[in-house]
Amino acid sequence: METVLIPKVGSYEVTAESFHCDFKHELQMSYLGNYMLNAADRHSTERGFGMRYLQSANKTWVLSRLCVEMTRMPKQYSTLNIQTWVESAMRYFTNRDFLVRDIQNDEVLGYGKSIWALIDLSTRQPVDILAINDGDLSNWIERDKPCPIEKPGRVKMDDDVQLICSQPVVYSDIDVNGHVNSIKYIEHALDLMPLDHFKENRLKRFDIAYVAESYYGDELNYYMSKRSDKERAIRITRSCDGTKEETEVVRCLLTFE
Amino acid sequence: METVLIPKVGSYEVTAESFHCDFKHELQMSYLGNYMLNAADRHSTERGFGMRYLQSANKTWVLSRLCVEMTRMPKQYSTLNIQTWVESAMRYFTNRDFLVRDIQNDEVLGYGKSIWALIDLSTRQPVDILAINDGDLSNWIERDKPCPIEKPGRVKMDDDVQLICSQPVVYSDIDVNGHVNSIKYIEHALDLMPLDHFKENRLKRFDIAYVAESYYGDELNYYMSKRSDKERAIRITRSCDGTKEETEVVRCLLTFE
Repeated sequence: METVLIPKVGSYEVTAESFHCDFKHELQMSYLGNYMLNAADRHSTERGFGMRYLQSANKTWVLSRLCVEMTRMPKQYSTLNIQTWVESAMRYFTNRDFLVRDIQNDEVLGYGKSIWALIDLSTRQPVDILAINDGDLSNWIERDKPCPIEKPGRVKMDDDVQLICSQPVVYSDIDVNGHVNSIKYIEHALDLMPLDHFKENRLKRFDIAYVAESYYGDELNYYMSKRSDKERAIRITRSCDGTKEETEVVRCLLTFE
Repeated sequence: METVLIPKVGSYEVTAESFHCDFKHELQMSYLGNYMLNAADRHSTERGFGMRYLQSANKTWVLSRLCVEMTRMPKQYSTLNIQTWVESAMRYFTNRDFLVRDIQNDEVLGYGKSIWALIDLSTRQPVDILAINDGDLSNWIERDKPCPIEKPGRVKMDDDVQLICSQPVVYSDIDVNGHVNSIKYIEHALDLMPLDHFKENRLKRFDIAYVAESYYGDELNYYMSKRSDKERAIRITRSCDGTKEETEVVRCLLTFE
């Protein structure tokens, strides 16, 4: 018998404020992405398996993959409803979905899908998700709500990737977890593109796979290949202080239309 | 006789969401700064003299100076009340104040002061603020609400400023007005500092004077001088494509404690 009073789907309202929008008067993807992560954080916190609770048990959530696909980006001043729910949970991974709705127009603007692992903060190794609160996470799985976009892809890299630039990690990149914020990679990847590209194209979807974490003191190297007119594959590596050795941190596919 | 039903002071609620916070679990100043500009935008829009209305009259607000002084930064998950009001209005300048309050603790965390000009979008020249809607702005002046911090300073530059780095303007820097977002300069200025500086110091106040606008295609040059252990003066200049000539864009003073 379920005694759940809180709904399985979390629902949060945000506004596409002027100074979170780009030159096209549309919400910047980086703001939308962080709104989604904030919604995930609130949803899990309100249901007893959030970062704050897990930190007391020396564990934390780690985002492994994320994709967001938008039919259109929210316009300046529009009020949005960000919904998020657990689609499934296995021993070492849980799938979390997102929906973005324009409240005034009652229009679904897009969806997101994400895959998370739970790690032990000391060993950095994955731990059993279903062991949290005696498997309580399973009670929150919402099986019936559709999220009709493709799963986040593996992002295969092409052979002809070219180094575009290298940049040190800076203060504003670092989030509450002490490493580079997951969405900042998308922001920096989009910043590799000339402004004209955004005048003529719309970012329809991004897929990002998080391979390793990066930290203050690292240099991030951005490699890009033009897979087609509308697709850019991006690999980000980190080099640690003083060495030329590079470790892959992120693979990302940007799809424009 | 006043027939004003809307209060003179605008009041807006925002939350210090996890993924808007820094490694100290405190709201990043860049998010707080944009929340303030968003509040100013809403306040003026709701009262008939916002950017949207003015654009139809081929005019827009230009931020000339801004300072923010915080007793403490909002902690992760705290709910904030951002208040803003018009302190005074002259022909070519209007003063707008801000207050940031932590709602749960009923604690004032800090204040802001700003100076704005109104310009004609074609000539880029200042126009008479008191001519908007037959001087209606004067009806919104709130003379009695205190904002007990120093006015935004002139920011004198020292002789020993040193070039720290040069960076091209990127997509995410550009806001709805088509030029570099006012708060982005603060974010980039803070990013000049090593992370350890933020572990040992708290940004208590910033003063920023906007001298000129900068655009996509510009290279921004960051000069800094250490005025004292706790003060950094920063000058940002722009160089246009292909020339070495630099034009001053911003002067900024960061005060830590």
